[in-house]
Amino acid sequence: MKKEYCGIFAIYGNERAARMTYFGLYALQHRGQECAGIVTWDGQKSREQRGMGLVAEIFTERHLEHELKGNIAVGHVRYSTAGASLIRNAQPFTVRHGELEISIAHNGNLINALELRRELESQGAIFQSTMDTEVIAHYIVKYLQKADLEEAVRRACSHIKGAFSLVILVNDTMIALRDPNGIRPLSMGKLGNSYVFASETCAFDIMDATYLRDLEQSEMVIIEKGKIRSAFLREKAPKKQCIFELVYFARPDSQVFDLSVYGCRKRMGEILAQESAGVTDIDYVLPFPSSGNYAAVGYAQEAKLPLELAMIRNNYVGRTFIQPTQEMRDFSVNMKLNPVKDAIKGKKILIVEDSIVRGTTVRTRINRLKDCGAKEIHLRVSCPPVKFPCYYGIDFSSKGELIAANHTVEEIAKFIGLDSLHYLSVEGLQASVPTGEDFCYACFTGEYPIDYSGELCRMRLDK
Amino acid sequence: MKKEYCGIFAIYGNERAARMTYFGLYALQHRGQECAGIVTWDGQKSREQRGMGLVAEIFTERHLEHELKGNIAVGHVRYSTAGASLIRNAQPFTVRHGELEISIAHNGNLINALELRRELESQGAIFQSTMDTEVIAHYIVKYLQKADLEEAVRRACSHIKGAFSLVILVNDTMIALRDPNGIRPLSMGKLGNSYVFASETCAFDIMDATYLRDLEQSEMVIIEKGKIRSAFLREKAPKKQCIFELVYFARPDSQVFDLSVYGCRKRMGEILAQESAGVTDIDYVLPFPSSGNYAAVGYAQEAKLPLELAMIRNNYVGRTFIQPTQEMRDFSVNMKLNPVKDAIKGKKILIVEDSIVRGTTVRTRINRLKDCGAKEIHLRVSCPPVKFPCYYGIDFSSKGELIAANHTVEEIAKFIGLDSLHYLSVEGLQASVPTGEDFCYACFTGEYPIDYSGELCRMRLDK
Amino acid sequence: MKKEYCGIFAIYGNERAARMTYFGLYALQHRGQECAGIVTWDGQKSREQRGMGLVAEIFTERHLEHELKGNIAVGHVRYSTAGASLIRNAQPFTVRHGELEISIAHNGNLINALELRRELESQGAIFQSTMDTEVIAHYIVKYLQKADLEEAVRRACSHIKGAFSLVILVNDTMIALRDPNGIRPLSMGKLGNSYVFASETCAFDIMDATYLRDLEQSEMVIIEKGKIRSAFLREKAPKKQCIFELVYFARPDSQVFDLSVYGCRKRMGEILAQESAGVTDIDYVLPFPSSGNYAAVGYAQEAKLPLELAMIRNNYVGRTFIQPTQEMRDFSVNMKLNPVKDAIKGKKILIVEDSIVRGTTVRTRINRLKDCGAKEIHLRVSCPPVKFPCYYGIDFSSKGELIAANHTVEEIAKFIGLDSLHYLSVEGLQASVPTGEDFCYACFTGEYPIDYSGELCRMRLDK
Amino acid sequence: MKKEYCGIFAIYGNERAARMTYFGLYALQHRGQECAGIVTWDGQKSREQRGMGLVAEIFTERHLEHELKGNIAVGHVRYSTAGASLIRNAQPFTVRHGELEISIAHNGNLINALELRRELESQGAIFQSTMDTEVIAHYIVKYLQKADLEEAVRRACSHIKGAFSLVILVNDTMIALRDPNGIRPLSMGKLGNSYVFASETCAFDIMDATYLRDLEQSEMVIIEKGKIRSAFLREKAPKKQCIFELVYFARPDSQVFDLSVYGCRKRMGEILAQESAGVTDIDYVLPFPSSGNYAAVGYAQEAKLPLELAMIRNNYVGRTFIQPTQEMRDFSVNMKLNPVKDAIKGKKILIVEDSIVRGTTVRTRINRLKDCGAKEIHLRVSCPPVKFPCYYGIDFSSKGELIAANHTVEEIAKFIGLDSLHYLSVEGLQASVPTGEDFCYACFTGEYPIDYSGELCRMRLDK
Repeated sequence: MKKEYCGIFAIYGNERAARMTYFGLYALQHRGQECAGIVTWDGQKSREQRGMGLVAEIFTERHLEHELKGNIAVGHVRYSTAGASLIRNAQPFTVRHGELEISIAHNGNLINALELRRELESQGAIFQSTMDTEVIAHYIVKYLQKADLEEAVRRACSHIKGAFSLVILVNDTMIALRDPNGIRPLSMGKLGNSYVFASETCAFDIMDATYLRDLEQSEMVIIEKGKIRSAFLREKAPKKQCIFELVYFARPDSQVFDLSVYGCRKRMGEILAQESAGVTDIDYVLPFPSSGNYAAVGYAQEAKLPLELAMIRNNYVGRTFIQPTQEMRDFSVNMKLNPVKDAIKGKKILIVEDSIVRGTTVRTRINRLKDCGAKEIHLRVSCPPVKFPCYYGIDFSSKGELIAANHTVEEIAKFIGLDSLHYLSVEGLQASVPTGEDFCYACFTGEYPIDYSGELCRMRLDK
Repeated sequence: MKKEYCGIFAIYGNERAARMTYFGLYALQHRGQECAGIVTWDGQKSREQRGMGLVAEIFTERHLEHELKGNIAVGHVRYSTAGASLIRNAQPFTVRHGELEISIAHNGNLINALELRRELESQGAIFQSTMDTEVIAHYIVKYLQKADLEEAVRRACSHIKGAFSLVILVNDTMIALRDPNGIRPLSMGKLGNSYVFASETCAFDIMDATYLRDLEQSEMVIIEKGKIRSAFLREKAPKKQCIFELVYFARPDSQVFDLSVYGCRKRMGEILAQESAGVTDIDYVLPFPSSGNYAAVGYAQEAKLPLELAMIRNNYVGRTFIQPTQEMRDFSVNMKLNPVKDAIKGKKILIVEDSIVRGTTVRTRINRLKDCGAKEIHLRVSCPPVKFPCYYGIDFSSKGELIAANHTVEEIAKFIGLDSLHYLSVEGLQASVPTGEDFCYACFTGEYPIDYSGELCRMRLDK
Repeated sequence: MKKEYCGIFAIYGNERAARMTYFGLYALQHRGQECAGIVTWDGQKSREQRGMGLVAEIFTERHLEHELKGNIAVGHVRYSTAGASLIRNAQPFTVRHGELEISIAHNGNLINALELRRELESQGAIFQSTMDTEVIAHYIVKYLQKADLEEAVRRACSHIKGAFSLVILVNDTMIALRDPNGIRPLSMGKLGNSYVFASETCAFDIMDATYLRDLEQSEMVIIEKGKIRSAFLREKAPKKQCIFELVYFARPDSQVFDLSVYGCRKRMGEILAQESAGVTDIDYVLPFPSSGNYAAVGYAQEAKLPLELAMIRNNYVGRTFIQPTQEMRDFSVNMKLNPVKDAIKGKKILIVEDSIVRGTTVRTRINRLKDCGAKEIHLRVSCPPVKFPCYYGIDFSSKGELIAANHTVEEIAKFIGLDSLHYLSVEGLQASVPTGEDFCYACFTGEYPIDYSGELCRMRLDK
Repeated sequence: MKKEYCGIFAIYGNERAARMTYFGLYALQHRGQECAGIVTWDGQKSREQRGMGLVAEIFTERHLEHELKGNIAVGHVRYSTAGASLIRNAQPFTVRHGELEISIAHNGNLINALELRRELESQGAIFQSTMDTEVIAHYIVKYLQKADLEEAVRRACSHIKGAFSLVILVNDTMIALRDPNGIRPLSMGKLGNSYVFASETCAFDIMDATYLRDLEQSEMVIIEKGKIRSAFLREKAPKKQCIFELVYFARPDSQVFDLSVYGCRKRMGEILAQESAGVTDIDYVLPFPSSGNYAAVGYAQEAKLPLELAMIRNNYVGRTFIQPTQEMRDFSVNMKLNPVKDAIKGKKILIVEDSIVRGTTVRTRINRLKDCGAKEIHLRVSCPPVKFPCYYGIDFSSKGELIAANHTVEEIAKFIGLDSLHYLSVEGLQASVPTGEDFCYACFTGEYPIDYSGELCRMRLDK
């Protein structure tokens, strides 16, 4: 699954600000492996380091110890599709205006970025990147001519539509905020006397920071001259948190939207078991690690079936290896996961996966299990069929590539070669989380919480 | 746990010999991450590439496509302690003698290497490396003066004592062999018309090669001018296969010693559950991933307890990251595994681990679980206490560092901070594998199958 | 000598545009070793590659063959002081505005950049870099709202003061121009049917392009849809070409300002010989290679003295080597140039150098010659004492560090430890070039051709 | 010109031994750019670092400060042809024998290496490298069984024939020696209380070490337990020093064979001028930098002609740049040297070069000068025609590629396109050095000072 998620970490008032941000980004690495950056404020000016690749590859001891000075820092990890893999798209995005240095770390996607960009351009604005984040910077600067920072940010955000959790650093003032629908997560915590912000709480755990709470939708938390206060962008819109964070994207050891990801996934598995109770004589439940593990635990407990961990992940598969030639194409799938042959042979197996997008990888895996002698293979998916594109930050393959957009469940089962296939229902998914109505299910239902008026909003700036 | 295991892959008669070896080593990467090498025979002379680091870092498309020509290849991955981390210790080890180019890939450890080296030196031999493997090369060359290759290898091996699975390539003749006790594994398979050899069958799976059988102890498989035949080094000694391959080292998706690693580990967990049945009211079984997963599956099924996968591994923790400073030392433990807090709080947890060496890492982990509010923590270890050093290829910490060598189970439980601690018994371990008497348990019992006469044998050449 | 010179190469209408630009920049490498970049127009959009380091380190075959597509290209090499060594300051500088992609390669320095930036900021503009070049982009975009490209560039340039040779690429239209005083050079040539532009003609020689002429001061050469035409920014101001290009900076094999650099330097040496004829009994003339070579040739011929090339340069001294420790500090000077001892001993030597800035390096060299037994050492400098900072693109050390700003010639001679010291007079320098009145001598005389009204203009944006 | 020269630096008794060796090798970089290595003795064992590339690329501060400990060090730079470009051929070459660690740095070439290797192999020896140096190690070890180190080295050297300057380090004992004919250079010096050895004295200059003297032919200088003494290998053979060191290879600022390289080259130019006095009306003498510079100085002074430095070298041409495509082949020649056009036009030019091997590069250069409008071009070469291969360490192109082996001077002049061509005569070359009879002129005359009995001796081990 292609994705455009990002991860944010920020810290205010810590003498090891850059180092803590490094560790925070390390914990958030799953949210973006393409590029990363850290900006600090050294008391006089901002310092920055950005690069392509993993956090551990970009930053060195020299950066943390000597260059990224200061006790305020903002960091970002980013994943994006190949076309825009440019260092200049690495965040935090920094611009200068007079004495002000404005850095923005953004998680989410604006649906009216292109319209706003055209509008700003008609007023003479120029752009360096192809990121939607750049329009936010333009508006903040524009309103700073006539308003203070809090008000400038508020007015800037009044223009933008879509999903945005932001940490904005203007010299030594930090503002963290979530969009009015609260689509993307953002948590705050405390580490000694420092304040910390992160997309997921796993970034707090690594440094034993205390999780305080999530930012509310539309909330701005402002830290200025060491004082913290809360304000609001505008009236809150209905909460429409991204359910896919819980289904797939967030780490299971995180709290996201004030919910335990692990607990939610296990509950999805339980409800999935209830919904698809029909098949009998199953020998055991098998997750595809590691994404399917947690729903599988719930499914197995609910269905009172044994759980076997008989698909083995090669822990050394990294991002780079020599591609098999055309006729060895399945090698790369085999390299990542390999079944335990004698645990497969002659067995009726129920597999739990968290999602199916194009269906080709799962098909290769299922074929392999059949080659190993599996008697029956049943697949249970812990979310509903993904039928609609997401405009708020998850870059699913285009609609044409979403297998569920164009095929029935039966067709999919046949394509993959399954004895049975069940998806969790939308209602079941909604029931898996304590406050099911507070989430966006648009990728399953096509009911988009934020209206979009034209094609323009869906165009990507870099295309 | 420090270890000196290695992994071997070899292929004979395949036009993509180097590429297949690359993929084979990729699958065996867990057996050695320090350095790797591939040697091919291009029909005229040998080609080679060795390097420090992971397989994916060492070899490039250029190596596989243009440099490592030929349809015969031998590869090796190696792990060793820091002192000997030198590129010249990377294998396959190659020497030249007249028109012969002799490459050796060795998994195991010779206990009389130093004595043999001293003897050879007294005859004028010189050495380039600090590897015990080099003495084998000297003896082979010595006997090649008066015997054919098969006999020369046989006589060379009559000198060496210890554990050795070898693949020897002399120009276009390949000899694969296992020591008389069969301490280290070596399997053979078929890929189309090619023969393949590997330390574990997971290397066959990646390329859909068919597993044929293990080499017998003392067996030599010789492939010469395309013809394969079997011979023996000497009379077989009693089988003394390394039980630690099954307990800890091999990949669970491999067949090793003709046994399913996954199946054996699960059985260890089952017997461990039977042996430590006393504790009641356990909420769930929790493995430390991924090494504890498979015994935990067996334990949970046997004890009829739920299994939770609530310790989460950061998949992006690589070999290099900036070390936390002294006072942040636990960061690096936290970075690797993080518990799901709300699954821990108030719970009575039974943890399954595969082994304890020094006890310090497990202690940090247990402390963290207590900080998360665990009510009780019970630890079950799926092998007996490791009390004795291994001279056959696993570099445990020295005896002084083996916590079980100097402390009772009660003392260990107290040191770690456990509510209860049970180890699998030696008998239980023996019962976990179908042919329990065919294994070496010396690290648990001190009963070494191969006699060693003095201190010399245990000295490492590079110390 | 610190310097902020840059080099530009551009080509229009060549199917190997990126490759030719690579070679052109290679020839101009002496004008900037800190970073480099190439931008091409592929017919649909611009392509770019920038990086830190030398041209040969930044660009790969892949870049030239596959990524930098198109038959129009602009390239830039840049040298700047450490503080601003950031990849985002690499040029060509690219911005986007609607469908337009505007890339600018700039050689020179604007003296009112900070004022213009403040003015633009007061209108809401934001900046990403600390380069003065960015203000030009802002003005071009601003005027493009109401004028065509030629006029927009003209109006944009009406704001800026200082030294600027520019190549501007707006989609497929290229504009090359020089400032009204013609301070920095820019030549045009022809390569088959392509037009080429370069800071120096040595970039034409490498590809056997034909040198056509220099751009006139204030001239814009516009290539649009394959058609070339000439226009003017405004009325020409008096020609004030940078004499330091001829003294020191340009390659001796280049034509610069339509003059042979080699010929001018030789003539400087000749006049220097005439001016400092007093010393007798000199054994030979010795240049410090390679910068002093050409004036030394002229000096020796005029003074009828032998020329010896007895200071030897280590051709392998690169940019990076391990720094000697404090007490071995002279090592790095010794590593670059080493005298031929037996050619020095007992000799009366007249050294020709092209300039002295701080005097410390030349002092170390002179000391070394004395240690080798030189009997007398006389130094002749082929330009007048550098007493004033340059605001047009050469970053001399600050005035406090310019030895001639604060010391008489006698004091300098004493500090360095010379038997005599003569500098070329301003009149002599003026006489060395055919059109001596067309040059700027401000660094020697303090007479700045472009008025500057305040401190602001001299502040650097990155400080 | 392909070459197989190497450079050696060694130091005994200096607390910065590795660092000094680094700087020494830096000064000797011109003697070998393919790979380099340093071995130190830390008091207990040897430390080593070797690598491919330039000295500045291989060694880091960490190597010098933390790893290469000890106050004794030996270093080596090596150039060899592509076929043997392997890290295992990097020197110093180290072997182990019991408690002894033997490292050898070798400059020269053995003509009977292959015969000796076959002989040693028949006694059971095995080899790891393809370097002739390895046989020396075998013999030393062999004789160490029955003799002390000095005698063992003496006996080992009694077997080998050819050119060899060696520094041998056996634990803390250092032996430096030159072969009986003294073909390759080796100098000794003093740095404070330390002894230093180097192939050329430029390595002493960088650290202000005092040059003491050259080793005599057949001399061994032994430093043991801090005491230095001299001994001899065997009776001295006639001195047959390599004249090509003075003609081409050594740095002009070095003393080699106790002679000033600069002085010798200048004298070659003077005699060349006397020998080829016929041409008149020459406008000036032009060297091809930098190799032709020094003979050109002598020629110009003797012929009373002006010297112009009008071929300009691009100082940034490194080892790696993207190759021009086939039809741009001359680019790479143009990139290295570019003529000053207006100094060439209409002129009668006499070029001085130090040697011609294949003639193709010089031909391209001459063509370019003609394109620039040169009226006449006369070429003077400061050594006789190279007609015979060298078996003592210079890897000229094979005889088939030596243009002078198969063509008369007239033919060569015509091929290159010259108005006249003169080579220095053998007598003239002999007269250029004070003790002309002490040199080997075999590459010019075919009179080899060391007899070789068969083809074997000329075979390279790596072919």
